[in-house]
Amino acid sequence: MSRVAVILSGCGVFDGAEIHESVLTMLALESNGLNFQCFAPDKPQLHVVDHLSGEVDGEASRNCLIEAARIARGQVQPLSELQVDDYDALLVPGGFGAAKNLCDFALVGTESTVDEDFFVVAKAFAEAGKPAGYLCIAPMMLPAIYGEGVKGTIGKDAETAAAFNAMGGEHQFHEVNEICIDEHNRVVSTPAYMLAGSLLEAQSGIDLVVAQLAKWLDA
Amino acid sequence: MSRVAVILSGCGVFDGAEIHESVLTMLALESNGLNFQCFAPDKPQLHVVDHLSGEVDGEASRNCLIEAARIARGQVQPLSELQVDDYDALLVPGGFGAAKNLCDFALVGTESTVDEDFFVVAKAFAEAGKPAGYLCIAPMMLPAIYGEGVKGTIGKDAETAAAFNAMGGEHQFHEVNEICIDEHNRVVSTPAYMLAGSLLEAQSGIDLVVAQLAKWLDA
Repeated sequence: MSRVAVILSGCGVFDGAEIHESVLTMLALESNGLNFQCFAPDKPQLHVVDHLSGEVDGEASRNCLIEAARIARGQVQPLSELQVDDYDALLVPGGFGAAKNLCDFALVGTESTVDEDFFVVAKAFAEAGKPAGYLCIAPMMLPAIYGEGVKGTIGKDAETAAAFNAMGGEHQFHEVNEICIDEHNRVVSTPAYMLAGSLLEAQSGIDLVVAQLAKWLDA
Repeated sequence: MSRVAVILSGCGVFDGAEIHESVLTMLALESNGLNFQCFAPDKPQLHVVDHLSGEVDGEASRNCLIEAARIARGQVQPLSELQVDDYDALLVPGGFGAAKNLCDFALVGTESTVDEDFFVVAKAFAEAGKPAGYLCIAPMMLPAIYGEGVKGTIGKDAETAAAFNAMGGEHQFHEVNEICIDEHNRVVSTPAYMLAGSLLEAQSGIDLVVAQLAKWLDA
């Protein structure tokens, strides 16, 4: 049975992994008969955001791994311990955690660099030809990982799409219930909450991403 | 279109609302065409638990409402502002938050009392004959709200079932993919993560709870 590594980046849309996307991802993996294990970086989150007010709490500090354990009901491992040989595919939910903790796109835009532990892992999956799925804002890391010409989608935001292209990717505009498939790199992406107005909308694209991973893994 | 009030109690299985149950609840409500609004008590959580180690962090303090906003993507209101007239049904996911923040069953067992704001709301739904659903450990509040003879399930744990009965309820043993329907009180419950070993198992019972609410709301 195939095993998928799911990379979380905290717990909450504004400073961590988007919760709905993470849960819908795990649900879709189970529905497709794919085993999974969650991982997260063992480091402080860039921000702690009060999700009621939307304000950054400048006093607070939370750890990505410890907060991700909330989504994973305790079953999460440090990203630095991920052995790529043990997994067949990679899946990265979105949320600002992907753009604040897995890379720094939310801070510096096209000058963004990818978290070192995540880069090593994601690059290893890419070089091994193992398929990967990126949701929401997480595809902004694809150019750094896959290099020039990688295809991905963050939905329909023109400015973000231009940033994707400026970093070397070839952005494809897609609706929330669609996926962008890069067959050459075996990477699939979907806008999820970049566009979703409901759980069902987010699920429509996430289910297609996981189905595409399952198809690659079966082939 | 019917409106359902969903009561969250933080964000995370060990000190708040169980995240998978909360998301699967909202997903099922959307799937059944039911509108919903999340609420949570605006008060400190009893505990902050490190979900990686399982240890209580004695230094930390988090607010139920602010943490619940992570699950609700910011769209959550204080429980004290819930106008029962505006809603047709009540839904209460589980997690230790239900037994630590909505009542104190996790601390004092059968001597438990229900959070005052939650009691007022839940009792008003009961007295108006509006249907309600309780998941996981949350049904432990049913005897206090509905009184002698209320039927509910927390699954198959004999000690917890005995406590339910000692408080005046009539516990019914059920599997994770089953629900307990109390037609007289119009309240439905399911074990969810009291028994679930996966998201699909939790979903199996939660979907039935929401379907039963939809049935009552249609009738």
